[in-house]
Amino acid sequence: MKILVSGGAGYIGSHTVVQLVAAGYDVVIVDNFSNSHPTVTGRLEALTGTRITVHSFDLTDHDKTEHLFATEHFDGVIHFAGYKAVGESVEKPLEYYENNLVSTFSLVRAMQRYDVDKLVFSSSATVYGEDQAAATEDRTTYATNPYGWTKVMQEQILRDVAVARPEMRFALLRYFNPVGAHPSGTIGEDPSGIPNNLVPYIAQVAVGKREKLMVFGDDYDTVDGTGVRDYIHVEDLAAGHIAALKALADTDEPVHTWNLGSGHGTSVLEMVKAFEKAVGREIPYEIVARRPGDVAVSYADPSKANRELGWSTRKTVDDMAADTWRWQSQNPRGFAG
Amino acid sequence: MKILVSGGAGYIGSHTVVQLVAAGYDVVIVDNFSNSHPTVTGRLEALTGTRITVHSFDLTDHDKTEHLFATEHFDGVIHFAGYKAVGESVEKPLEYYENNLVSTFSLVRAMQRYDVDKLVFSSSATVYGEDQAAATEDRTTYATNPYGWTKVMQEQILRDVAVARPEMRFALLRYFNPVGAHPSGTIGEDPSGIPNNLVPYIAQVAVGKREKLMVFGDDYDTVDGTGVRDYIHVEDLAAGHIAALKALADTDEPVHTWNLGSGHGTSVLEMVKAFEKAVGREIPYEIVARRPGDVAVSYADPSKANRELGWSTRKTVDDMAADTWRWQSQNPRGFAG
Repeated sequence: MKILVSGGAGYIGSHTVVQLVAAGYDVVIVDNFSNSHPTVTGRLEALTGTRITVHSFDLTDHDKTEHLFATEHFDGVIHFAGYKAVGESVEKPLEYYENNLVSTFSLVRAMQRYDVDKLVFSSSATVYGEDQAAATEDRTTYATNPYGWTKVMQEQILRDVAVARPEMRFALLRYFNPVGAHPSGTIGEDPSGIPNNLVPYIAQVAVGKREKLMVFGDDYDTVDGTGVRDYIHVEDLAAGHIAALKALADTDEPVHTWNLGSGHGTSVLEMVKAFEKAVGREIPYEIVARRPGDVAVSYADPSKANRELGWSTRKTVDDMAADTWRWQSQNPRGFAG
Repeated sequence: MKILVSGGAGYIGSHTVVQLVAAGYDVVIVDNFSNSHPTVTGRLEALTGTRITVHSFDLTDHDKTEHLFATEHFDGVIHFAGYKAVGESVEKPLEYYENNLVSTFSLVRAMQRYDVDKLVFSSSATVYGEDQAAATEDRTTYATNPYGWTKVMQEQILRDVAVARPEMRFALLRYFNPVGAHPSGTIGEDPSGIPNNLVPYIAQVAVGKREKLMVFGDDYDTVDGTGVRDYIHVEDLAAGHIAALKALADTDEPVHTWNLGSGHGTSVLEMVKAFEKAVGREIPYEIVARRPGDVAVSYADPSKANRELGWSTRKTVDDMAADTWRWQSQNPRGFAG
């Protein structure tokens, strides 16, 4: 079984590649390396003990995408590729819509032409808009920023494609907050510029790259006033993709939507404490104003994925902190170091 | 003032071109002629007494679009180009999403690069989903088919572009049911294949091209049991575009949404009667089952456009029937005849 992984050199993609190989799949990566590093390939080969084929081009290029599908037959596609920074999407909406939608058009067009019928798609809890507490998959979807809208729109497009091509199978995976790293410490999240997300930011403070953490608001209606999120270890998330891919091979329903989260919320300060335990010293932080657009609480209802995929998260918040710290301390400058 | 009209050889586009020229604008058309006829150009030149520049290429071609904007400066764009058949969109969703979204990406990208800041966009009452009775512009938008979703999505994309580029001005015009033709009878609606809409179908029955009209359901909760729609004469609709274009030149608000409709509903059988009067003989029809996806009643609340644009419909249902009949009887085979 040969699987094409778009964005396979990226954060979630790379961890999924490791598990795909371990599960016996042949893996082919396509990545434009716009937000990932070529070093990843060598690390993946070391981790998996196998040669990984990597095609370096942009999926928005229809001709190159077609050519790839004409040359190799895939049994399924896991589609991670896409821009993902909320703030940047507000500043560059057209670039976000174009990149995220056109790469999906190109991929699905090639799948249709070359009879590849299974697609696992990276969606996001952002499709629940501001209603992310205990979100179930049947909620109305909407977004509060262009990045989020690209996910809402891609889900709708795939659902409509499924009506026209009922032989196709789609898994729409709505991720909550992926964190952590491979336990080896050789691959992990390597954001370019100032991290937008809490855990990479804490990690960069812990390793001395940033002075202190900014905590955006401590007056939310939560356990300690700081924002609460459902963090999911990237290893658990990767396992969810393998489970979804297997489920698509054995279903009559064209489209499945699954929340991938732990079902538990963790506050900013709780995550800081877990890091302090992992690192062995205090993480300096400062409480600042709320960040516009942030919701107080977000956590999944993962019961549908638990039930239908036989999948649930296994890693704890302490695992997330320890694994992130191992990756960050061994690679203080990320993949470029 | 030079205006680029995409899809300017199409039904609504061509009627708008005539009024733009009459209002003193220079007009440049871009059209791929996938659903329009080259003959239109000569008819437009005869009607306007002026030479019309027509570029024949597909807007989804970024390079050609860029080149056009590099060569000529436009003061504004009216964007009609797009696929528009609901049923076909269900069968070919990917083609609809790709064509309609990518042409808008290409156009807006070129506008940004060459500082063209005014866009009048062809949206549709279909963004009100199944809630089309007395719809006001603040309703939540959603669709019931891929064609409709392309309109919902394009509106969202343009709203997000406006946030990032506050110097731009967008008019989102939500059309109800455009019918009728230019009073000269030289341009009009020329659908390829079996017409999806009532009025072109009646016209083809009247001219002997089709045997009888199929009326989809007579058991709706309406005046006579048949479906009720808000028909707007294409001449009134074209005038709405000119009014919107002028309004964009004189506003601080980046995005305006206006319903373009009469505010009145007309039943299928009322439209049949208007045609019988125009044609001077009976239109044979048969009542058949309801068509899946049809709503009972759709009519605009056009009060926002009335108030803000100083625009309202002037033509009657009898005008619609008479003008459609003049076009159809003078051109029984459409532009190809």
